[in-house]
Amino acid sequence: MKLDHIGIAVSNLSSSNDLFTKLLKEAPFKEELVENQKVKVSFFHSGDTKIELLEPQAPESAIAKFIEKKGEGIHHMAFLVDDIYAEMERMKADGFLPLQDEPRIGANNKLVCFFHPKSTNGVLIEICQER
Amino acid sequence: MKLDHIGIAVSNLSSSNDLFTKLLKEAPFKEELVENQKVKVSFFHSGDTKIELLEPQAPESAIAKFIEKKGEGIHHMAFLVDDIYAEMERMKADGFLPLQDEPRIGANNKLVCFFHPKSTNGVLIEICQER
Repeated sequence: MKLDHIGIAVSNLSSSNDLFTKLLKEAPFKEELVENQKVKVSFFHSGDTKIELLEPQAPESAIAKFIEKKGEGIHHMAFLVDDIYAEMERMKADGFLPLQDEPRIGANNKLVCFFHPKSTNGVLIEICQER
Repeated sequence: MKLDHIGIAVSNLSSSNDLFTKLLKEAPFKEELVENQKVKVSFFHSGDTKIELLEPQAPESAIAKFIEKKGEGIHHMAFLVDDIYAEMERMKADGFLPLQDEPRIGANNKLVCFFHPKSTNGVLIEICQER
């Protein structure tokens, strides 16, 4: 499976955009509000994959809770799939634990589904599909 | 900067190799003992980047301490550079904090240098260069 992006939880998107622009020597190519997940995100290119910074927009956002519990840092790894419904069934059959029954709409107008870290060595996994 | 790999700390390389083979639908292409870092690692392809699993070989290994403190999970992000010495100087000048004065030899016979997560939103960053 191809790595689509790495998601990093940050407290302040503007200052973290500056930090990662310095690190990656390239500015983010996109910024987006993902209302249903209550996050503002930015994306950077890195080779043929991407780095996503996620800033919580409300205390009940999963990203706000993650930062409260663990601090800023890497939040998830996302893999691009062709058919998210088939892949969810395949992964469930292989023992991975989806956090949702149905895909939802995520950043970049993609369908996304997350899987519980306890089924993947503590790594929160997202699969995503172009719509 | 191009993402070379994502490093994931695991307690048991053999069972985690099985888990990630199921997840990625492809077996690791390489396993290696990195003696100076007291870890055994495996590598999986994912698009044009890689996923590295790291199993500690001794209680004093940085990976053992990471797992003890935070549990298994994503440990670092590594970026490929052409000239690690020049890049270390560039990053130091930009305010990033190297954890070493000199590059050391890491997995895949690369020169590597790590940077403190407190300078990068809680993300442990590695830069690496082919030898």
